[in-house]
Amino acid sequence: MTDQDRYWMQQALALAEQALYVSSPNPRVACMIVRDGILLASGTTQQAGGAHAEVMALRQAAERGVEVAGSTVYVTLEPCSHYGRTPPCVDALIQAQPARVVVAMEDPNPLVAGKGFNKLRQAGIEVAGPLCLEQALALNVGFFARMVRKTPWLWMKMACSLDGRSALTDGQSQWITGPLARDDGHHWRARSCVVLTGIGTVNADNPLLNVRAVATSRQPYKAIVDTQFSVDENAALFDGTPCWVFASRPDAEKAARLADKNVQLVLLPEKQGHVDLTAVVQWLGAQHINEIHVEAGAKLSGALIEAGCVDELLVYMAPKLLGAGRGLADIHALSSLRQAPQYEFFDVCPVGPDLRLRARQKAHWDALLEHCS
Amino acid sequence: MTDQDRYWMQQALALAEQALYVSSPNPRVACMIVRDGILLASGTTQQAGGAHAEVMALRQAAERGVEVAGSTVYVTLEPCSHYGRTPPCVDALIQAQPARVVVAMEDPNPLVAGKGFNKLRQAGIEVAGPLCLEQALALNVGFFARMVRKTPWLWMKMACSLDGRSALTDGQSQWITGPLARDDGHHWRARSCVVLTGIGTVNADNPLLNVRAVATSRQPYKAIVDTQFSVDENAALFDGTPCWVFASRPDAEKAARLADKNVQLVLLPEKQGHVDLTAVVQWLGAQHINEIHVEAGAKLSGALIEAGCVDELLVYMAPKLLGAGRGLADIHALSSLRQAPQYEFFDVCPVGPDLRLRARQKAHWDALLEHCS
Repeated sequence: MTDQDRYWMQQALALAEQALYVSSPNPRVACMIVRDGILLASGTTQQAGGAHAEVMALRQAAERGVEVAGSTVYVTLEPCSHYGRTPPCVDALIQAQPARVVVAMEDPNPLVAGKGFNKLRQAGIEVAGPLCLEQALALNVGFFARMVRKTPWLWMKMACSLDGRSALTDGQSQWITGPLARDDGHHWRARSCVVLTGIGTVNADNPLLNVRAVATSRQPYKAIVDTQFSVDENAALFDGTPCWVFASRPDAEKAARLADKNVQLVLLPEKQGHVDLTAVVQWLGAQHINEIHVEAGAKLSGALIEAGCVDELLVYMAPKLLGAGRGLADIHALSSLRQAPQYEFFDVCPVGPDLRLRARQKAHWDALLEHCS
Repeated sequence: MTDQDRYWMQQALALAEQALYVSSPNPRVACMIVRDGILLASGTTQQAGGAHAEVMALRQAAERGVEVAGSTVYVTLEPCSHYGRTPPCVDALIQAQPARVVVAMEDPNPLVAGKGFNKLRQAGIEVAGPLCLEQALALNVGFFARMVRKTPWLWMKMACSLDGRSALTDGQSQWITGPLARDDGHHWRARSCVVLTGIGTVNADNPLLNVRAVATSRQPYKAIVDTQFSVDENAALFDGTPCWVFASRPDAEKAARLADKNVQLVLLPEKQGHVDLTAVVQWLGAQHINEIHVEAGAKLSGALIEAGCVDELLVYMAPKLLGAGRGLADIHALSSLRQAPQYEFFDVCPVGPDLRLRARQKAHWDALLEHCS
């Protein structure tokens, strides 16, 4: 692999971000067709059912009347080799006859998993990779988590002061962080497949839970953990867009009334006083949910952490000290520091006056990385 | 001012860090003598009573037999014009006759304050500046605070989890952050003039409070806030190095016994149940203390914050969630978010797996900057 290859793969990875809010449940992929250091054409994955990145790039090349044969194609994920909602991308590539295909990583989807590479090689096309693997993995961490371990990747968005307070003792929390941090939070809602909260937050804040600060053609699903199925039928988030309510107590009449508002009751077993959260995450995986964005209070946040469901923390931290106040997550008192859930910081940046800290469960990430390497 | 000037001033500012643990209570200064883009000689401030940076650089030039006349001299602070423990640096410079002196900032010390510039100009030497002012200010923030507002700059070192816990509910705090963060903390002890703690920490941890992880020729003073003067006379920090105990209750016999261990009792008025902390800070300023490094428990930390004595937070944050546990600082419950002490993040970096977050009181910094601009 050359510096040129690395350069173009970085370009392709940056381009793939155009599909961030679009392609779910398909992975975000970009394809660039290059010859002699010149970009001939490029494309990104369209919405589910639409064209994949390779087909978009080949179409653009055709429109421009440029010759793909003999070129180098950069793709951020192994081209698909199976008939899904669209025909296999490898067939389109083989027809175009590039000399070489450079791929960031193999697709762990068992329907692909190296078969795309094999078909290309059999057609006499050189295949090179992996390249920039960790970046490619991060770009579609939820898709890969679902492929590899059958559950989505879950991040928990939180906002707090420098001393870890999410609200004053009287519950005041608007606003600890600034408007730029709140807008940035909407980017993360927009890229997720579902925004999940708890009944406590619905009762306290009556949130909309939709994407507002970011332009998007696709809204994520909404979901509530509401063990007693006690949610107010007039809650603001029931605005006609699809919403799931996870509960352990059936109420057929209420469920029927809410169904008219596009709300689906999902009955799941109870565990330790609330809906089994592991079952929630597994159920969402079965619905092709790649990424879960949690915005919840300290109670559900703590329960998710203790259930081992949290892969990543997305914390907006304001340069303030609040002293007395509410914590980020209700975790049971530990008897030893070694019991504390261990994360690793992997992305820290300023957002206006606040900081955005991203930390992930190292073991969860390493397992994905190992599987995809 | 040219790019060359900026380059050499950056070099000088980096060199001045060699005086970080050395020059107190004098400011850390570096001087570089440059001609035709070539460094002829350089120097930094020695320990108090020793030579200043300009004299060190001129001496090196003399040793090397290089001609200073006609050169450009870069100094990170206005050369002194008064007789202190050493003769004025401007006189030495005038004798050497450089063509030009570029200075990062004027010395707010009323004994200097522009007089150095005037003497140089009167001697026919061109003077240029300020250049890289904010960096030069940060390098000696404590010295400038003492000159401008008569009190030292106080930073508070803290270690906590991502959710702002400094210890488990049972008090376990060893270790929340990693060994690199603890070593880094010693750099900050080493550059300070005094390490201040509370009687609670002395009783709980019996700390040494000296610099260990960093090589230094100078140990900072030690100090304890101990309103009732109840400190154990055999506390580990009474190891013969100078220590101040701030109390409001006299005990002449105990004070005499401790004096034999180089411990000085400082009696100060009581305010709201403990020694008046503003008086502590003012007293330290009068002792030529530039920088106060606080390592205390939540009680003293909270009291210092509420007394308005804290200029800067130095927080080591581990990527862990502890949930229940002790907070960073006991601040009385706020009735509005607007009452929260406001800081600004200005330096965030990883230290091993942990983060080091520095945040300062914006108003305190801006006041210094305005005075020195």
